[in-house]
Amino acid sequence: MIEGVLLDVSGVLYEGAQSVPGAPAALARLQAAGLPVRLLTNTTTKPCHAVAEKLQDLGFEVAEDAVLTPATVAMAWLTETGHRPHLLIHPDLREDFRTAPDTGQTAVVVGDAGEYFTYNNLNKAFRLLIEGAPLVALAENRMFRDEDGGLSLDAGAFVRALEFAAGLEARLVGKPAAAFFSAGAAALGCAPESVAMVGDDAEADVAGALASGIGAGILVRTGKYRAGDETLFDPAPTCVASDICEAVDLIIARAGH
Amino acid sequence: MIEGVLLDVSGVLYEGAQSVPGAPAALARLQAAGLPVRLLTNTTTKPCHAVAEKLQDLGFEVAEDAVLTPATVAMAWLTETGHRPHLLIHPDLREDFRTAPDTGQTAVVVGDAGEYFTYNNLNKAFRLLIEGAPLVALAENRMFRDEDGGLSLDAGAFVRALEFAAGLEARLVGKPAAAFFSAGAAALGCAPESVAMVGDDAEADVAGALASGIGAGILVRTGKYRAGDETLFDPAPTCVASDICEAVDLIIARAGH
Repeated sequence: MIEGVLLDVSGVLYEGAQSVPGAPAALARLQAAGLPVRLLTNTTTKPCHAVAEKLQDLGFEVAEDAVLTPATVAMAWLTETGHRPHLLIHPDLREDFRTAPDTGQTAVVVGDAGEYFTYNNLNKAFRLLIEGAPLVALAENRMFRDEDGGLSLDAGAFVRALEFAAGLEARLVGKPAAAFFSAGAAALGCAPESVAMVGDDAEADVAGALASGIGAGILVRTGKYRAGDETLFDPAPTCVASDICEAVDLIIARAGH
Repeated sequence: MIEGVLLDVSGVLYEGAQSVPGAPAALARLQAAGLPVRLLTNTTTKPCHAVAEKLQDLGFEVAEDAVLTPATVAMAWLTETGHRPHLLIHPDLREDFRTAPDTGQTAVVVGDAGEYFTYNNLNKAFRLLIEGAPLVALAENRMFRDEDGGLSLDAGAFVRALEFAAGLEARLVGKPAAAFFSAGAAALGCAPESVAMVGDDAEADVAGALASGIGAGILVRTGKYRAGDETLFDPAPTCVASDICEAVDLIIARAGH
């Protein structure tokens, strides 16, 4: 029985600058069915308010506090553990760290910095790491679908580079980290096993959610999906849907009320 | 019986800007004994002619074609297999690839590109890799001692980044790759088992050579050598010498003519 829903954003609700056909109405149907929804996006280039605004512009009814990003989880960790962040992130994301601690041990926080992944910026982070700073990875995705239509290097490549050189392991707070899915279930007010996660990334969204104890993982054939993705990762998706519209039909059919 | 000699360069023939005391004369003694010599260095920022010139400036009698670098081995592989290189290397090294094939399948070649490891350059390489280009790593070192005295990110970090993102393994052509020692023996015109390798790196130079079938691996206590290094790696050095001068004495005593 599904009592709450986590939705990936890019590739599920929209592709590029266009909403997936029928997606705003599909989201509204979930809300009308009384199912709480949170949007779980691994974006590390946009602050939460910008994610919500983009969705609103595309016709989705979404509040800013329904959006959870890895920055949300990283901020909670920095605050709880008293770490001051050294940010290797896109400048647009800095606003989500504006209330971070400014004292305490330094932690290196890496997101998708894009063109800000210069040798000098990476080397500054490396030098902090070999002096003992922990490494927090907002994401470890290998690639993303870029604006020109091609696949491009994502933050995970740079996280691996720093891990290898400094001889340590990053603390991942983005998908597929269990911490992110747990934060999503907590925000829904649901037990993880009663939550469904919908995503276009068979590894980070779907296998990650299932491995973290989320009850159902639905893979959609939009966004970055490539034929056969559902066979590549363990656990396999609970089911595969053509798009968010079909996924919502499946969820409502299995809803707890 | 030793019939040819491979020498590491930095830490064996010179340290920083100074030749190791007696090293130019030791090299001359090998040559006078009729033993062919090749210099096997893992530098990926200097072309062969610059390595030879630095040695000549320090008083060594060395021809440019006695210097073998990972670029030498990569060039041989590109030529043999008919691959056209896409170079992600320091511009100074480009001259060693000037006769590379300009047709055929593309191969991505990565060295220590330093500040040229920009996001855009890495992403261009990544896109070629996911289209099927093989990845050739000139080195996989984690870090190096930089000009400011601090440790800095080396090529290995960026090789790992590309391997992770593209889901493949690089073909390593620098030490300790067997291909590099084999190329050295071939350049000497010797069977590998009749060759001695002298180096200050117990792992990459000495254990690497022995694991590749080189007959003798001599560790010198200069350069990066630290007490006890000879006990850390398998295979253990054939013998340990205080410096290149003593290593040459040992080699000449066991020479085949």
